[in-house]
Amino acid sequence: MTQRPAVLIMQRHLAPLTGFLESTYDVYRFWEHPPVEAERDIQALVVAGEFPLDTALIERLPSLRLIACFTSGYDGIDVGWCRARGLPVTHAPAVNHEDVADHAIGLILASRRRLVEGDRTLRSGGWTPEARLITPSLKGARVGIVGMGLIGQAVSVRAEALRMSVQWWGPRPKDVQWPRTGTLLELARSSDILVVACKADDDNRGLINAEVMAALGSSGLLVNVARGSLVDEDALIQALKAGTLGAAALDVYEDEPTDPSRWADVPNTVLTPHTGGATTESVQGMLTLLMQNLAALFAGQPLVTPVPD
Amino acid sequence: MTQRPAVLIMQRHLAPLTGFLESTYDVYRFWEHPPVEAERDIQALVVAGEFPLDTALIERLPSLRLIACFTSGYDGIDVGWCRARGLPVTHAPAVNHEDVADHAIGLILASRRRLVEGDRTLRSGGWTPEARLITPSLKGARVGIVGMGLIGQAVSVRAEALRMSVQWWGPRPKDVQWPRTGTLLELARSSDILVVACKADDDNRGLINAEVMAALGSSGLLVNVARGSLVDEDALIQALKAGTLGAAALDVYEDEPTDPSRWADVPNTVLTPHTGGATTESVQGMLTLLMQNLAALFAGQPLVTPVPD
Repeated sequence: MTQRPAVLIMQRHLAPLTGFLESTYDVYRFWEHPPVEAERDIQALVVAGEFPLDTALIERLPSLRLIACFTSGYDGIDVGWCRARGLPVTHAPAVNHEDVADHAIGLILASRRRLVEGDRTLRSGGWTPEARLITPSLKGARVGIVGMGLIGQAVSVRAEALRMSVQWWGPRPKDVQWPRTGTLLELARSSDILVVACKADDDNRGLINAEVMAALGSSGLLVNVARGSLVDEDALIQALKAGTLGAAALDVYEDEPTDPSRWADVPNTVLTPHTGGATTESVQGMLTLLMQNLAALFAGQPLVTPVPD
Repeated sequence: MTQRPAVLIMQRHLAPLTGFLESTYDVYRFWEHPPVEAERDIQALVVAGEFPLDTALIERLPSLRLIACFTSGYDGIDVGWCRARGLPVTHAPAVNHEDVADHAIGLILASRRRLVEGDRTLRSGGWTPEARLITPSLKGARVGIVGMGLIGQAVSVRAEALRMSVQWWGPRPKDVQWPRTGTLLELARSSDILVVACKADDDNRGLINAEVMAALGSSGLLVNVARGSLVDEDALIQALKAGTLGAAALDVYEDEPTDPSRWADVPNTVLTPHTGGATTESVQGMLTLLMQNLAALFAGQPLVTPVPD
């Protein structure tokens, strides 16, 4: 019988938010099976936007007033379904796009300049006086950006500083300084490195398909820092094994955490565990927005960062 | 009894030059123990400048007229000793400094954003739903450049594009836009990331000593893309094990290839096998300068890129 509003954290990796939220709210954690009587108290869900929202659960929460995504992305949330129930959705936009762009540049360097492979070779005794690993320079490499949003633009600025050229494709023209190709296939055909940086939704699932990979080609590099759903992962694995695609550097996967056995015999891959946007500074910024949105809800104020219409 | 000048390649990893050199020269390879009678024919040595030059060998080569470094660096060559014998030394300046700078940025990202560790963790099954690796953003990180030459300047431009600030130290002032600190210790004290980018010589052996490492501190990152001799490697290993230095990302070592057992239990390291400047494009540029210097020598023309006075 508390006076404090109750919130429910959905994903286990968000557990560290508990301490901050408990300063103001009663906090339940989904994976700890909250008592049934809590269901009538819970007023907000705190979620990572890349995970599918459990709509059956929502229908058991009569007091629910907000879906608060801790993340920038909210592709796991059926916003239309929520709106039809009068449930607003908030997220954390424009907080970590530059960190994600840094990560994309890191993945390009790690793959092209073979940093991860070099570290592995050296540690396993494979560096000998006879052999020196020669890698391709970044100079003049053609980067194709899929989706010229905040992340895409931040990647483009960095790519140019590293002597690469930039073009992009997205479904809608944008007022940016880089040229847009007519189609995604055209972009892939004229790129050495394709960086997937667009928002994921139901319409672009598997956007990077076998045909796009073949167009990128046997010396092409596919980088994904957006969402695993945007890439046909089975086709990707097949293309890398067949050598019809040169390399892939991925931070996101169809299922997360991805099963490592899936990648064990796939050549020319650099794989990071969805750490692109997860910096100390970004997490702090996302936490601030989360707390502000919750505070606005319970104060009856306008939400600070609702998802766009 | 050939009419073609004879050249001797000294290091085994330069063996791939053979094919190019053989179009014009008789080529001997040191590690294949050339016949004694070749000694009187050899007119040029082709060397990697980071390796100590065998002066006893040189004294057995009466026709020797040139030490041609394939590399930009020539710290293994006692240029004064060569000059005293009327032996000019050439090298390959301003060819690969931007690739080395790219590599330095890659090492910074690989260490700070834990790309190598992330790849290792994911592949070994260490990515679980409970844990998400949080890494420090590059935003606002203070980069200290040791030696503001071509590499240092190229690193600085890139660091700024990645939202880091730059200052530097070197023994002489330079006309660059970044502030120079009064001392190396001052630079280390006020840097999060120290990038060693200076030319190595007899005077700066062990320049990055235990005191500099302590000044960089327990959350500091040391990056070396210059020469192993510039860093006191025993002190480095001790500082990393003790945690008085946070991390190191190295492309160069006191001995190369470095013994991997030396690094087996040293935490927070990213280690690449001296691949910073070894790109396809740079190697092509270095080969061009090598062939031009040899051609100039045998045509009696001025050498194209002699080492500076």
